[in-house]
Amino acid sequence: MNALDELAESFSRLPGIGKKSAMRISNHLLKADQTFLERFAKQLVELHSRIHQCSECGAYTETDPCAICSNPLRERNLLCVVEQPQDVNTIENSGEFRGIFHVLGGLISPLEGIGPDQLPIGKLIERIKKENVTEVIIATNPTVEGDTTALYLQQILRQTDVKVSRLASGLPVGGDLEYADKLTLARSFRGRISF
Amino acid sequence: MNALDELAESFSRLPGIGKKSAMRISNHLLKADQTFLERFAKQLVELHSRIHQCSECGAYTETDPCAICSNPLRERNLLCVVEQPQDVNTIENSGEFRGIFHVLGGLISPLEGIGPDQLPIGKLIERIKKENVTEVIIATNPTVEGDTTALYLQQILRQTDVKVSRLASGLPVGGDLEYADKLTLARSFRGRISF
Repeated sequence: MNALDELAESFSRLPGIGKKSAMRISNHLLKADQTFLERFAKQLVELHSRIHQCSECGAYTETDPCAICSNPLRERNLLCVVEQPQDVNTIENSGEFRGIFHVLGGLISPLEGIGPDQLPIGKLIERIKKENVTEVIIATNPTVEGDTTALYLQQILRQTDVKVSRLASGLPVGGDLEYADKLTLARSFRGRISF
Repeated sequence: MNALDELAESFSRLPGIGKKSAMRISNHLLKADQTFLERFAKQLVELHSRIHQCSECGAYTETDPCAICSNPLRERNLLCVVEQPQDVNTIENSGEFRGIFHVLGGLISPLEGIGPDQLPIGKLIERIKKENVTEVIIATNPTVEGDTTALYLQQILRQTDVKVSRLASGLPVGGDLEYADKLTLARSFRGRISF
């Protein structure tokens, strides 16, 4: 195995990159600038030491607390609960939400043996009190695990006097009824909005 | 821009990787082993110094001449002409060819201002004589540029007494007549093989 094949092997380990794409990328890099390759290599090596999770919300950040938690202009009474740290970026990019976040780091999944006790729910309730949160938006994925976790959180948060909501689930914008699966269609009926 | 975004930006510059895939890969690497990241980084940095083109055939190699050119078991009277160094690997992986290669490094393309004079045809003829080649297989892509170059090579090689052939063009195996474009269908008629 020569240097080209070795590099392609590394690329093929990444999600969404097959053997052919990996080889194509490696061949492309043979013509790339050495400066680019060195900067790219440095970014890979330094990734772990530069990025960690925010001690407040759990998002990926270089500073602690993260830019969102330490921003006084965010609406701190609005808290959005997500599964993974990267979900924070996805929601931030939409520009729809001006509150603060809380990363669960996992979902209730009986199949994987993850129960409610393994999720940092106590920390969530602590934060709700500390930040005087009035509304919690649950933004877990619309999957079996995401639904279960959302339902569980809703029950737990009943003890507190915060308003609890969940992201709407239904037809994607620009989508086509014809291609919607039965479950999505059923949800879009149940969650219908009156004019 | 934090370290995660910087890494994603580098990934998004690679062919076939969009912004979302780049972010997904970067998030995946956050959970990867540091050893893997360091080996990956080393492979990127060392790529240019370890890989170069074979001085004989032009294929990518770590040794000079390459493993194919220096292999006494290859059929040296059979020479396959390809456009790019990576085409050598593609053909090698098929296991169909046991001869030697010659990389042109480009194709005749009036649009890009590349004429026959810019291609290393003299070197090809030299090699044909030196290696006592009896058959030249032209394996340029079945595109306008590939066809033009193949036609030109065929005319040039008429001066020598080598047999010249070209890879068959037609329906891909497992393909469907219904989805074949007109040009491919026309070629598969012209190149039909009698039983």
